Amino acid sequence: MKIVVLVGGVGGAKLALGLARVLPAEDLTVIVNTADDTWMYGLRICPDLDTIMYTLSDLVNKDNGWGIAGDTFEMIAAMRRYGEDAWFGLGDQDMATHILRTRLLHAGKTMTDVTSILTKKLGIHQQILPMTDSAVATIVDTIEYGEIDFQTYFVKHRWQPTVKSLRLEGIEKAVVTPAIEIAIQHAEALIVGPSNPWLSINPILSVPGMRELILSRDIPRVAISPIVGGEAIKGPAAKLMVELGFEASAQAVASYYDTLLNGFVFDSMDGIVEIPQEHVTKFETIMKNDEVKVALARSVLEWIQDW
Amino acid sequence: MKIVVLVGGVGGAKLALGLARVLPAEDLTVIVNTADDTWMYGLRICPDLDTIMYTLSDLVNKDNGWGIAGDTFEMIAAMRRYGEDAWFGLGDQDMATHILRTRLLHAGKTMTDVTSILTKKLGIHQQILPMTDSAVATIVDTIEYGEIDFQTYFVKHRWQPTVKSLRLEGIEKAVVTPAIEIAIQHAEALIVGPSNPWLSINPILSVPGMRELILSRDIPRVAISPIVGGEAIKGPAAKLMVELGFEASAQAVASYYDTLLNGFVFDSMDGIVEIPQEHVTKFETIMKNDEVKVALARSVLEWIQDW
Repeated sequence: MKIVVLVGGVGGAKLALGLARVLPAEDLTVIVNTADDTWMYGLRICPDLDTIMYTLSDLVNKDNGWGIAGDTFEMIAAMRRYGEDAWFGLGDQDMATHILRTRLLHAGKTMTDVTSILTKKLGIHQQILPMTDSAVATIVDTIEYGEIDFQTYFVKHRWQPTVKSLRLEGIEKAVVTPAIEIAIQHAEALIVGPSNPWLSINPILSVPGMRELILSRDIPRVAISPIVGGEAIKGPAAKLMVELGFEASAQAVASYYDTLLNGFVFDSMDGIVEIPQEHVTKFETIMKNDEVKVALARSVLEWIQDW
Repeated sequence: MKIVVLVGGVGGAKLALGLARVLPAEDLTVIVNTADDTWMYGLRICPDLDTIMYTLSDLVNKDNGWGIAGDTFEMIAAMRRYGEDAWFGLGDQDMATHILRTRLLHAGKTMTDVTSILTKKLGIHQQILPMTDSAVATIVDTIEYGEIDFQTYFVKHRWQPTVKSLRLEGIEKAVVTPAIEIAIQHAEALIVGPSNPWLSINPILSVPGMRELILSRDIPRVAISPIVGGEAIKGPAAKLMVELGFEASAQAVASYYDTLLNGFVFDSMDGIVEIPQEHVTKFETIMKNDEVKVALARSVLEWIQDW
């Protein structure tokens, strides 16, 4: 069963790992948010792509869910010695990824090609695709600081500022890549990971043509709720929902996705309530270890098999 | 006494440290070879400038004479995991220097300005000046590999190839910087460090106008021999001299500098022989610890004081 999964960072990567463990590698395509990407020290940093790559190659720091296990931060420490306000934690091993990616981009490769090259070198056989090849940036309008870029909001200020609104700089010029078009055209199901709907999934869906492409496919199109018991498993999803005027609930997430999707997975701790999707179920979604990741992936695949 | 010292890497840095310990900071200017500089991973790497900076800021790895003490090589290890032939040892702390330098260069600063900014941030009060602001590259013509760039010769092949000749790419466009012009105009003595005359000092002297500027000053202009007992203290100087058709001796170094200089220091183990320089002496020049560095600096300064 050919599966396309849409993801942001840590939560999505966990589901992608579960799917990778139960599907033949050639049947899994992971489409990744790149609106968090930024330039830092002349390097192109792609936090969500890196998290997916490090997770699928088993390099990931499992305590954080991101970064490389055992990585050191000597370069950043030396930056501070030079008086730099080095608030973004670039690991020393991690640096190799940013350096090679930047070199390939400067050599004229697309982000899709760069990602393909890097993933192959890490021994990853699943297809990992950036949501688009052009630069898109999530700009966060906050009460405290006005408009700031995503990493300033997320890392420097640890997502504590109050968000008034979000916008996607450069999204109007973004296009659906040929690789994504082919992957979705051939998909037998599309799964939206338990990633932040506003910060991680909405950028992917906002690439002009992406919603139409997804809606054109009469296949299972399901999301797994990132909200369990009114709280986010990780990160600012619940806080952000309230700030943006939504209720912090799985139901509100389902409503947000509306009929773009036709199925929705609640966590087993939550009650199933009325939502716009036709198919609805509940599974254990808190992926606290690899067994739960695999079990969730298996459950979702079994659930959608007979639609 | 205002001193200008011309240096390459490790040997010159040791003398510069000795001078820095005995002179007021404002009286010492270090002019540094930049013909070893290279681009690597999109970063401008300046091995000799770094060695001087790390030595004068006391960050240096004293076992090597270059690099930062206690530095790690996690980024390079990760590069190898990506399949890169990462033969140039960029330390993780060291990376901060290259990243900041490159950012400043891309922002339009000259190499002189960049070096001034970085040295100040490391708490160095002496003036460290690159030999010129434009890019000059030592190209080594070897029997084994034909023409190769300096770092390929020096680091990748550990200076084992047989050298047929050297040339300085870009030297015709290089100019003496205003900072160097001022420093030499105000110098009360000029000292050529015990660096490799062909690989480290000749590039500095080859900047158009540099020899004339030095010769215009009727001051002590002395070199310390990098050859002791027919051998180099470190690196390829002796091997290279033979390959280029010279005798590997301090006398041959003195002849090479000829009347550009008017004084020459032999090591105390060597006998004083007939050379082109008017003033000649011998001191302990093997700077195996900081005491010898300081003693040598003091001896040279005392020796030239009464000319």
